[in-house]
Amino acid sequence: MKDIFQWFRENSPELRKDYFKFLRFRSISADPAYRSEVLACAEWLKTYIQEHTTLQAEVLETPGYPLVYAEGSRPDAHKTTLLIYGHYDVQPIDPIELWKSDPFEPVERDGQIFARGAVDDKGQIFYAILAARYWKESGRQLPINLKFCIEGEEESSSLGLAKALPHLKGRLRAQYLLVPDFDQFDARTPAISLGARGMVSLEVTLTGSKSDLHSGLHGGLAYNPNRALVELLAQLWDSEGRVQVDGFYDDIAETKETGYTFRFDRQQYRKEFGIEALGGEKGKTMEEANCFRPTLELNGIGGGYTGAGIKTVIPAKASAKISCRLVPSQNPEKVGRAVEAFLKKRALPGMRVETQIYPGAYAFRGNPTSKLAGAVSQAAEEVTGIPCKKVLSGASIPIVADLVKATGAEVVGMGYGLPEDNIHAPNECFDWPRLEKGFATVARTFELL
Amino acid sequence: MKDIFQWFRENSPELRKDYFKFLRFRSISADPAYRSEVLACAEWLKTYIQEHTTLQAEVLETPGYPLVYAEGSRPDAHKTTLLIYGHYDVQPIDPIELWKSDPFEPVERDGQIFARGAVDDKGQIFYAILAARYWKESGRQLPINLKFCIEGEEESSSLGLAKALPHLKGRLRAQYLLVPDFDQFDARTPAISLGARGMVSLEVTLTGSKSDLHSGLHGGLAYNPNRALVELLAQLWDSEGRVQVDGFYDDIAETKETGYTFRFDRQQYRKEFGIEALGGEKGKTMEEANCFRPTLELNGIGGGYTGAGIKTVIPAKASAKISCRLVPSQNPEKVGRAVEAFLKKRALPGMRVETQIYPGAYAFRGNPTSKLAGAVSQAAEEVTGIPCKKVLSGASIPIVADLVKATGAEVVGMGYGLPEDNIHAPNECFDWPRLEKGFATVARTFELL
Repeated sequence: MKDIFQWFRENSPELRKDYFKFLRFRSISADPAYRSEVLACAEWLKTYIQEHTTLQAEVLETPGYPLVYAEGSRPDAHKTTLLIYGHYDVQPIDPIELWKSDPFEPVERDGQIFARGAVDDKGQIFYAILAARYWKESGRQLPINLKFCIEGEEESSSLGLAKALPHLKGRLRAQYLLVPDFDQFDARTPAISLGARGMVSLEVTLTGSKSDLHSGLHGGLAYNPNRALVELLAQLWDSEGRVQVDGFYDDIAETKETGYTFRFDRQQYRKEFGIEALGGEKGKTMEEANCFRPTLELNGIGGGYTGAGIKTVIPAKASAKISCRLVPSQNPEKVGRAVEAFLKKRALPGMRVETQIYPGAYAFRGNPTSKLAGAVSQAAEEVTGIPCKKVLSGASIPIVADLVKATGAEVVGMGYGLPEDNIHAPNECFDWPRLEKGFATVARTFELL
Repeated sequence: MKDIFQWFRENSPELRKDYFKFLRFRSISADPAYRSEVLACAEWLKTYIQEHTTLQAEVLETPGYPLVYAEGSRPDAHKTTLLIYGHYDVQPIDPIELWKSDPFEPVERDGQIFARGAVDDKGQIFYAILAARYWKESGRQLPINLKFCIEGEEESSSLGLAKALPHLKGRLRAQYLLVPDFDQFDARTPAISLGARGMVSLEVTLTGSKSDLHSGLHGGLAYNPNRALVELLAQLWDSEGRVQVDGFYDDIAETKETGYTFRFDRQQYRKEFGIEALGGEKGKTMEEANCFRPTLELNGIGGGYTGAGIKTVIPAKASAKISCRLVPSQNPEKVGRAVEAFLKKRALPGMRVETQIYPGAYAFRGNPTSKLAGAVSQAAEEVTGIPCKKVLSGASIPIVADLVKATGAEVVGMGYGLPEDNIHAPNECFDWPRLEKGFATVARTFELL
C-alpha cells in the first residue's frame, strides 16, 4: 500500500493535469450539438490508456457513441479476469446560470474541484485507469487480466453499448465486473454498492391548438394545455404517494433483502440540501422508498411563457419529461408502456397526446459474498482505515444488468462520490483526496483478486 | 369619403414604407433587454406625428417607458375633444422557432403582412395617426380637438402611464376616448367594442431544495417541486371548471348586459385553431365564459429539464405564471391576493412558496349610446357597407378603466383585427385593406363627431 500512495503523490501534479484535460471535453451525450466533443473525448481517452497502461486500447464503433475498450494483449488463463465499466460522457449543464464557474474549465475552490463530470463518471473511471497506470509504472506485472469498457452514452440510456453487446460478448467475458460509479457511505466510511435501480423514461406532450393563443380573446373558450397537463400529472399519485399507474408495483421481487446499510438522517438531509418535504409512499421507510420501491419523477415540465414578466398566452402545447426508477424483476418496457397508457387514458378528451418512451434498463444486484466484493471491501478498508459498508443505490447504471448478463460476471459497484457532489446538477465537484482513495482502492483490489 | 380613400391609395407606397419602419422597432416592453429599442421607437413615433400631422408631439417621461403625447396647439372650445389611446410596444416573440419569418422584418405573404405588432397595436394606432395625417394633407382644418396618448408598456401592465396619470389628468381631459386596439366582428363585419375584461397576473415558485438533485439518488426521499406544483395547480379548478379560489366570483356585477353580439361558431373555431377541448364553467354559455365570467389561465409552467432527451433531475424549483381576466366590479388587487392566498395555503408543507403579484387593471365598459359610439359605427358602416355590431371583448386593455376615470371621457373601442391575426403568438399578421378601413373609419369619425 505504501508504494501505491507514494507513486500517486509523486505523480500528482501530472495526474491532476491529465484529469483536468479529461474534464475539459464537453462530452454531453444527450445533446447532439456536442457530438464532436464526445467523439474527441473518446479518442483522447483511448490514447491515454494506450500510452500509460500495459493494455491495448481501441475505439469501438457502435450504433451510438463509440466505446473505449482496452485489454491486455496476452491474457493469462490462470489469472482472474476483471472488467471495469465506466463512462466518459456527462450530463447536460443547464441550468447554466447556477454554475459558479465554467462547467468545462475545472477549478478548485475550498478543496473541491468543480467541473461537469468531476465525479460522474470521469473522476471515478479516471482513478481506475490510474490504478492500471500505477501497475505499469511500478514495473510489476498486473496480477489479473484487466479489461476496460468505457462508454459514451451512459447519461442518455447506453443505447450504443446495448446494441453492440451481443457482438462484444466474447471480448467482454470476465469473472468480475467492477463499476466505479457510486458513492461512499458517508464522508468517512467507504462502501461497495451491490445493486442499483433500473429506469425507464418518457415524454408526453399535450397539444390543444394549432398555435399559441391570446389568453384574453380565447380565455374561457379554449382549454389551456398547461391546465390539462397539471390536471393529468397530478393524477399520477394518490394522497398517500402511491403511483396510480395500473401495474406500476407489479412484478416487484418479494424476497426481503438484508445485510445492507442505509444512510439517511432527516436532520442532516434538511441541513445539507435544504429539503423539508419528503417524497415516498405512506407507510414505507426512507430506505424502502429509495432502494426497494419504484418511483416516478417529473424531471421536467414546460408549457407557455417562462421568461421575464408575464405573457398572456394560452400555449398550443405543454409537455413533461418523466422517469421511473425500478427495482429487481420490474421490466422497464412494461412499466414505460403502463405509464404511457395511463397518460393516454387520463388525458383530457380533445387534447392531442403524443408520447415517446426512451429505452430503459433493469435494476441489478451483485453477490455480497463474491471474491470481488471481498477484495474491494478489504482494499477500501486498508485505504481508509474504516470498515467498508455494503449498500444499494437508488440511482441507475442503465447498462449494468445487460453487462452482467452478457459477460457472466459477478458485479460490484464502488465509488468515493458523496451526495453533496452535485452530480447531474450545477456545480458538480470531487476532490483530490477522494480521487486518491479511489485510485488506491482499485490498485490494491488488483492484488487481492 | 371619396377624398379619404383617394388620398390613401395615392399615398399607399409611402405609407406602407412608414408602417414597415414602425414595425421594425423591437419594442418588447416585457423584456428589459429591448429597452433601447422601445425608447428609439417612441422617438421615431413622436417625430412621425410631429412631421405629418398638425399636432404638437412630445415624448413624456414616466416612471416606466415614455408616452408619445400629441395635441393641437390651439384647442377650440367649441369643438369636441377626442383622445386616441394606443401603444407602440409589442409582445415578446417566443417561441421564436415557430415564426416563418423574422418578427421584426415585415414581409407580405398571401396578402397578409407578417410582423410582431402588425396589428397589436402598431398597425391599429398607425392608421389612426394616418387619419390625422390625411386631415393635414387634405388642407382641411381638423373638425375636432384631437389628442394622442400612445404608451410603451401596454403589453406589460401600463405601469408608467398608470403612475403618470394623476399628473397628466389635465392634459388628457377629453369628452371621448377612442381605443383602436380591437377586432372587427368577423371577416366582413365591422364592430365597436364597448368593454373589455380586467386582468391581474402573478407568478408562483415552489422551492424544494437548495439545488437540483439526482432523481435516482434522491428519488423517493425528496419531494419533487414539479410534482408539488402540478398537484397545487390542479386544485385551482373543480370538475365543473369553476375556479376554487375563495372569493374568485365575488363582486361580479349582477345586471345582465344586453345589446351585444357575440360570435362563436364551434365548427369554425375547431377548423381555424384546431381546438377540440373547450374551457369555461359547466352550465355557462361560451359568451358568458368569454365576456361575463372571470377566468384563470396558466400562461406558463416550468421546472427541471425541458431540452432534448432526458435529464434525470429533481429540480430545486418549479414555477408558474398565472393571469386572471376580470369582469366589471372585480378588484384586480383583491383577486390577485385571493389567488396568492390559495396558492400559499394549498402548497405542500415544506415547499418554500414565493409569489409576485403584478399590477392589475379593472374591466371597463363604454356607453353604447354615446356620440362617439354613434360616429364610429356610422363611419365603419360607410367604409365597409355593412352595419356595425356592438361587442364586448374577452381581452384586456389594462389602462383603459383608469384612463376613463382620469379623463372623464366616454370610451369606444374599435379595430379591424381578426382572431386569426395571431396577436401575442408567432406569425402575427395584418393586411393593407384592413389597415385602410381602419384609417378611413377614424378619418371619417373626426367629421361625424
